[in-house]
Amino acid sequence: MSQEWLQAIQWTEDGLVPVIAQQHDSGRVVMFAWMNRESLALSVETGYAVYWSRSRQRLWRKGEESGHQQKILDIQLDCDADVILLKIEQQGGIACHTGRQSCFYRSLHKGEWQTIEPILKDPAKIYS
Amino acid sequence: MSQEWLQAIQWTEDGLVPVIAQQHDSGRVVMFAWMNRESLALSVETGYAVYWSRSRQRLWRKGEESGHQQKILDIQLDCDADVILLKIEQQGGIACHTGRQSCFYRSLHKGEWQTIEPILKDPAKIYS
Repeated sequence: MSQEWLQAIQWTEDGLVPVIAQQHDSGRVVMFAWMNRESLALSVETGYAVYWSRSRQRLWRKGEESGHQQKILDIQLDCDADVILLKIEQQGGIACHTGRQSCFYRSLHKGEWQTIEPILKDPAKIYS
Repeated sequence: MSQEWLQAIQWTEDGLVPVIAQQHDSGRVVMFAWMNRESLALSVETGYAVYWSRSRQRLWRKGEESGHQQKILDIQLDCDADVILLKIEQQGGIACHTGRQSCFYRSLHKGEWQTIEPILKDPAKIYS
């Protein structure tokens, strides 16, 4: 992995970079996760988002259990070269493990987090 | 700052939370930064984005030098309660210190980061 484009990225001390996943047509931001060099290289190679799971300390091929893969249409880098924005096509229209379109399903209203997105599919049925 | 909504957030060990700023109407993701409890509380209180600058280790009232403030229209929280998404109205239409609409102005094409957004205003004129 000596590619220049990979080396241009300012990785954290842990060798990670934060990644924002955005549904390409609706513009909905659906997820935030992390990648390491290997997962980003794999994402580019396969055309589907592969993250680095910090909790499980392993590669996380998004959708490996749920089937909700994220097809990558564009990969964008910010001015400091330390954040990545993915334009994706979300398979199944569900990015969140709660069965919602987006992980950002709560909104602050009058000092309280209110749920603003419906559950599209029962998680028990997604992960069965 | 004993508000429950603040306590619901899973702060990092450093007391921070990553924040994605998205232009509310176009859907363009314009920036990624961090907030601590104080800056998030101030953001809610003032209605304008206040970040925590990790490099300068101080509150960063976005637009304090450039005038490019971010009016907050909505604050969303993700499923793990550890990432915030701001729906904003970007003053001046420029979020990036390079004078571009978005900090994500580079796109990966054929193994190279290519610039995909024009400079709308010379940074020398923004920060003079």
